[in-house]
Amino acid sequence: MKIIKNPTRNTWGELTKRPIQSYEAIEATVKLIFKEVAVKGDAAICKYADIFDGVRLENLKVTEAEIQEAVQQVSTDLKAAIQLAKNNIERFHLRQKSIPISLETMPGVMCWLEKKPIQKVGLYIPGGTAPLFSTVLMLAIPAQLAGCTEIVLCSPPDLSGKINPAILYAAHICGVTTIIKSGGIPAIAGMTFGTETIPKVYKIVGPGNQFVTGAKQFATQFGTAIDMPAGPSELLVFADTTANASFVAADLLSQAEHGKDSQVVLVSTSVSLLQKVIREIPRQLAGLPRQEIVKEALRKARFIYMESEIEALDFINEYAPEHFIICASNEAFFIRGIQNAGSVFVGNYSPESAGDYASGTNHTLPTNGFARNYSGITLDSFQKTISFQKLSPEGILAIGKSIEVMAAAEGLEAHKNAVTIRIKALQNEKS
Amino acid sequence: MKIIKNPTRNTWGELTKRPIQSYEAIEATVKLIFKEVAVKGDAAICKYADIFDGVRLENLKVTEAEIQEAVQQVSTDLKAAIQLAKNNIERFHLRQKSIPISLETMPGVMCWLEKKPIQKVGLYIPGGTAPLFSTVLMLAIPAQLAGCTEIVLCSPPDLSGKINPAILYAAHICGVTTIIKSGGIPAIAGMTFGTETIPKVYKIVGPGNQFVTGAKQFATQFGTAIDMPAGPSELLVFADTTANASFVAADLLSQAEHGKDSQVVLVSTSVSLLQKVIREIPRQLAGLPRQEIVKEALRKARFIYMESEIEALDFINEYAPEHFIICASNEAFFIRGIQNAGSVFVGNYSPESAGDYASGTNHTLPTNGFARNYSGITLDSFQKTISFQKLSPEGILAIGKSIEVMAAAEGLEAHKNAVTIRIKALQNEKS
Repeated sequence: MKIIKNPTRNTWGELTKRPIQSYEAIEATVKLIFKEVAVKGDAAICKYADIFDGVRLENLKVTEAEIQEAVQQVSTDLKAAIQLAKNNIERFHLRQKSIPISLETMPGVMCWLEKKPIQKVGLYIPGGTAPLFSTVLMLAIPAQLAGCTEIVLCSPPDLSGKINPAILYAAHICGVTTIIKSGGIPAIAGMTFGTETIPKVYKIVGPGNQFVTGAKQFATQFGTAIDMPAGPSELLVFADTTANASFVAADLLSQAEHGKDSQVVLVSTSVSLLQKVIREIPRQLAGLPRQEIVKEALRKARFIYMESEIEALDFINEYAPEHFIICASNEAFFIRGIQNAGSVFVGNYSPESAGDYASGTNHTLPTNGFARNYSGITLDSFQKTISFQKLSPEGILAIGKSIEVMAAAEGLEAHKNAVTIRIKALQNEKS
Repeated sequence: MKIIKNPTRNTWGELTKRPIQSYEAIEATVKLIFKEVAVKGDAAICKYADIFDGVRLENLKVTEAEIQEAVQQVSTDLKAAIQLAKNNIERFHLRQKSIPISLETMPGVMCWLEKKPIQKVGLYIPGGTAPLFSTVLMLAIPAQLAGCTEIVLCSPPDLSGKINPAILYAAHICGVTTIIKSGGIPAIAGMTFGTETIPKVYKIVGPGNQFVTGAKQFATQFGTAIDMPAGPSELLVFADTTANASFVAADLLSQAEHGKDSQVVLVSTSVSLLQKVIREIPRQLAGLPRQEIVKEALRKARFIYMESEIEALDFINEYAPEHFIICASNEAFFIRGIQNAGSVFVGNYSPESAGDYASGTNHTLPTNGFARNYSGITLDSFQKTISFQKLSPEGILAIGKSIEVMAAAEGLEAHKNAVTIRIKALQNEKS
């Protein structure tokens, strides 16, 4: 864990690079499985559950009995914790409901926008080393608030053919309509085409490994929308001398435990803070499980000293972190100046964990520099906007001439005629 | 032009089908050109301008002198028409600016969302039979209002190596920062990777033929965001006996003239209205240019009689039209009930042409059924949302326990620790 001091701008490209994931390597596999699922449906899904998850499924769709069993299995403590998180996430996403925007652009020309739910959506919840029931909250709550009528959840089963009870419980209380035991490429293919058991959806959201990401990308070729391309999770902390080195170390470690390919970056205007954090990390690490994952992730960690806050902000905007923690006396400067980030955590008492679980903001966020061009999940992720307009006779007379001139200049006479015929009718009425 | 009467639901799948475009057929071409542009930059762009557009370019980037020449060439009448349209489009898109959403989800837990511009965007303007300067307005105006700092426009040059003056003029007055003479796959590849002359952008928007659409889809594999997959333009009109058959015929014809693959659909609860429109179409067609295009498009037109308005609305939502005109006494029923549409035009004096050019709404819209899961272009197309949170000591104490329980249940002890360490510090301070 070496400190990089005042890196020159020509090195920033290298410093903002993420561990690369190539789609090309898995493209053939994705295509093959999609083809098979499109043709064979459930049979293909079950075949791959056997191959990838090592399980022969009796039922692809989670039954009501399985859900009730899960509800029993989740502890009262965990239920209470989930309820608090659910309340906050619900309230913050409900706050995002917008009233229709409308404007009479000219007298008699009324224009407005309305948001409508995407009727059928698919939520992907990864399996793997952590049962991410928190992600169920983050996806299902806004989907339900948006008014989606069909909310399908896919998650890979364990070796006994079950999905973690906390995932089922969260899905149950957040209005998921169908839960499917399927993960990876087959799950995405199933929601893209629909099978006997898996409903076809219009949009697929949620995190996943490179196979899931590749499959989601491929799904767009069949008309399915996706939230964003996903990559390994990442955190960038800016900290000055007002930061608490132990807190910063704890935050970096929390990010590092996500996966071996997670990336953590600490940028500071204080060498002594950097040194303190670097000393603190092994101390805290000693008390943690998942050490192997953390150590591997820390190998890709970056500790950067920047003399100037302006330079630091420029670097952070070029990096475009998924998570960005600001522990600085000059926090307003960074809040105002941040252009590219998924979610921003301000001050010493705002760990990434807060947003990961319970504060109310969403934790499904753009990684891998995609914060430059993608938003994290919001209520809008489950809605689309429809524009409306209604012109009165006065309105068409006000803008008719312009339309005629422009349509003629584009060589589109029938466009022009659609206006001319109305204007003539109005003139005839008058005379 | 036959009337289909009360089609049963099992035939709707067939009736809502669009002329199919396959990506597979052009995939190899797209990959080849992307590879060449990534490696050879401008040289590849110029090579394909020679092959596809039949022109040897002296300069890829439109010069200031060329822009000034274009400004001279556009007539005063057209300038005035463009100005009126620009004002309305600007006002309606400016109205879409939203104030940050914020909520204290629990005492001491402040959460908020802010929208920030996507810094570098690329606008694609097709060449072909019509010089679509109106599309320049529709893309560049919201990009500029959003605050994008780099707005690149690509459009194919004509045989003399020029871009239509009206396109240059519109780009000039709407804040486009770089205009490039390049079209089709090479243009999209150029904006994806960047070349010596073409700036790399973070998001590419705008309509195009199947090659452009395929290229945009492929660009997403390299981290570039796109607005939506595009297909041929389409219009669905619902009309009852209160509709004006001549107006409806004019609207259908205006859509049909877009291209041979355009689709027009008329749904009505009145057989006599359907018959009147069918009789009126050839009469109006006789006076129009682009007859061959219109006739070819009309071969795919559909005239559907539906006894019930409820059934008609269900069908329209299943079709998910790009443009939807409502000429009905019961218009409120359709406004309320429409779930899937790009843009809706209400009443006898709201032709599609109004929204295509000058009312203020955007005309870059989801086609091919994508209105089920995509929005048309709005101000939001050029922004992304960043979430923020700031917790006070009181805030972390309020939600800390829940985070600890949930993190532990997910097996993420370092996430838990990032909270525990703060709570302990606060407790130590107190005691």
